[in-house]
Amino acid sequence: VGEPKESDFRLVEEAVPTPGAGQMLLRTLWLSLDPYMRGRMNAGKSYAPPVGIGDVMVGGTVTKVVASNLPGFAPGDIVEGRTGWQDYAVSDGVGLRKVDPSLGPLSTAVGVLGMPGMTAYTGLLNIGQPKPGETVVVAAASGAVGSVVGQIAKIKGCRAVGIAGGPQKCGYLTKELGFDAAIDYKNEDVGKALRQHCPNGVNLYFDNVGGDLLDVVLAQLARFARVVICGAISQYNTTTGIKGPSNYLSLLINSARMEGFIVFNYASRYGEAAREMAGWMAAGKLKSKEDIVEGFHTFPETLLKLFRGENFGKLMLKLAD
Amino acid sequence: VGEPKESDFRLVEEAVPTPGAGQMLLRTLWLSLDPYMRGRMNAGKSYAPPVGIGDVMVGGTVTKVVASNLPGFAPGDIVEGRTGWQDYAVSDGVGLRKVDPSLGPLSTAVGVLGMPGMTAYTGLLNIGQPKPGETVVVAAASGAVGSVVGQIAKIKGCRAVGIAGGPQKCGYLTKELGFDAAIDYKNEDVGKALRQHCPNGVNLYFDNVGGDLLDVVLAQLARFARVVICGAISQYNTTTGIKGPSNYLSLLINSARMEGFIVFNYASRYGEAAREMAGWMAAGKLKSKEDIVEGFHTFPETLLKLFRGENFGKLMLKLAD
Repeated sequence: VGEPKESDFRLVEEAVPTPGAGQMLLRTLWLSLDPYMRGRMNAGKSYAPPVGIGDVMVGGTVTKVVASNLPGFAPGDIVEGRTGWQDYAVSDGVGLRKVDPSLGPLSTAVGVLGMPGMTAYTGLLNIGQPKPGETVVVAAASGAVGSVVGQIAKIKGCRAVGIAGGPQKCGYLTKELGFDAAIDYKNEDVGKALRQHCPNGVNLYFDNVGGDLLDVVLAQLARFARVVICGAISQYNTTTGIKGPSNYLSLLINSARMEGFIVFNYASRYGEAAREMAGWMAAGKLKSKEDIVEGFHTFPETLLKLFRGENFGKLMLKLAD
Repeated sequence: VGEPKESDFRLVEEAVPTPGAGQMLLRTLWLSLDPYMRGRMNAGKSYAPPVGIGDVMVGGTVTKVVASNLPGFAPGDIVEGRTGWQDYAVSDGVGLRKVDPSLGPLSTAVGVLGMPGMTAYTGLLNIGQPKPGETVVVAAASGAVGSVVGQIAKIKGCRAVGIAGGPQKCGYLTKELGFDAAIDYKNEDVGKALRQHCPNGVNLYFDNVGGDLLDVVLAQLARFARVVICGAISQYNTTTGIKGPSNYLSLLINSARMEGFIVFNYASRYGEAAREMAGWMAAGKLKSKEDIVEGFHTFPETLLKLFRGENFGKLMLKLAD
C-alpha cells in the first residue's frame, strides 16, 4: 500500500544454484526498472498476476549464460527475459530470447530495443495511429517509453510535443531528440503551454502519467483525437483511490477515443519492430539515454526515482559487467 | 448552474409570425425532450454552441406546414427539424426534412426514427461495433436511446443486458423488448448483478449515464471491450464538478477503448438507417414507447423527469393534434 518502502523487501543471500537437466544458469548483467513493477505489488485482478509474498520480484533482465544443459544456449550467450531481481537465475529457457549484440549496447535489450521500446512502438503506431502533420503530445517524454514515442512520431511526420519535469529534461527533448516543443510541468502552466504549442488541438496523446495531467490534455483534444493509455505513474502509489479523468466527456465533445493496451498483445511483432528500430538507431533518428544505478543495496530508493520523476532516461540497475 | 429551475425560463406570448418570401410558417405538433438540452444551457465550448440568454430554447420538433412561400413545402406537409420550444416557427427550410407519415406515428420522427434512434444506431454499430455472441450492456435502457440500443444489439445477435430504475422498467425490457436480462439499479447491487448476467465480462457498454454507474461497469469489462460514450445524464446538473471514471485503468488492463461520438457526424447515413429501422419496426423487432406530456406550463418539471429517471420511454411534449 502506498510508496514501496524498505521494510516491504528482503535482500536474501543464497548459494548460486546449479542448473539441472534441460536448464541453464544465468548471471544477471542488467535489470530494467519500470513503472509496471508497482502494479505487480498489488493484490487483485490485472493483466498479469501479482508477485507472491516472499517470491523473487519480477523484472526484465539481460543475462549471460554461465553454464548450460540446454540445447541452443552456450556459455557466453546473452539472453533477455524476465528473470527478476536476482544476481543469478536458473532457467529452462521458456520466455527467453537471445540478444544479438550487434544491434546495440546490451542494455538496450531491455530498453529502447526491449519492452519499453516495443511499448512505445506498438502503442503509438497500432493504438494511436498517427497521421502525418498531426500533433502528438507525450507525457513523461524523457523517459524510456515517452522518448521513443516522440521520436517515432517525428519519423512518421508528426509534430511532437513532450511534457517533462525541469529545464534539463526539456532541453534534451528539443535539442537532442528533435521534439518540436517541450513543456516543463514543474515550471509552466501546462494548459496554457499546450494551447500555445498545439494551436489546432492535440490529435494524439500518449499517456503514461494519468492524474491531473491527463485532465489538462483532455481539455485540449482536437476532433477525432486518440488518447493512448499506456500507464498512470502518478496514480500507482495512491492510498486514496485512483483519480479518474473529470474531463473524459471531452471524448464525447470531440468524437475522440481513449484506448488502453498491453505490449504483450503484440509479442509476435517484436522481431520486425526491433529490426526497424535498430535501423532508425543506426541512421541516428532514434536515440536513447540510460540512467544507470549499481547494486540492490540502493533499493527501494532507486525504484522510487521512477515515481518521483527523478530518473533521467531509462532507469537500469547494473549488476555485473 | 445545477438543475434547471422555473426562474431560468420565461414563457413569452407573441402574435403568430407571418412568413416572408422564401419562408413558411410551421405549427409545432411534437417537441422532443432530450438530455443534451441541459448542455446547451451551459456556457463554454462543446460540439454545439449554447443557447443565448433570451433566445428560444433549442429542441427537435415535428411540425406541420400552415402556410408556405417556399417551393417544395405545402400546407399540411409534416416536417422534422430543430425549431425549438415554441408553438409556431418561421423557417426557410434549412435543416428541415419532410416526414413520410407512412413510416410510423408522426412522433417517431423525433424518437425512434429521429435523432435518438439515429444516436442508438450509429453509436452502437459504428462506434461499438458489436459482434454476434457478445454481451452488450446498456444504461438508461428503457429510455429513448437505450431501448433502441438493446433491441438492435439483439437483432445483431448479441446478448443485451439493460440497466434501468425500478421493476416496471426492468420488466418492460425483458418482457416487451426482448432484453436477455435487466438490472434494477434502484434495488440491486449493480456490480453483483453484472457479474451474474455477464459471466464472461462486458464486451460493449453503451453509456449515457456516467458517474458511479460507469465505474461499476468499467470494473467488469472483458478484454478488448468497447465503451461508447453517448452522454452522462448523471453529471449534467452537477455543481461540484464532473466525476471522472476512477476505474478508467480498466481500459489498460483489458486493452479496451472508450470512445465518444456525436450523432450529427453520421447525418449522411440517416436516410438509410431510418429505412432499415422502419423495416425492423414493421417486422416487430423494434418497439418504442413514448412518455407524453402536454403543455409548456408543466416546465421545468417535465424536463427534469429526464434527470430524475422519472420518464418511462421517449419523453415528448404534445403541443397540437
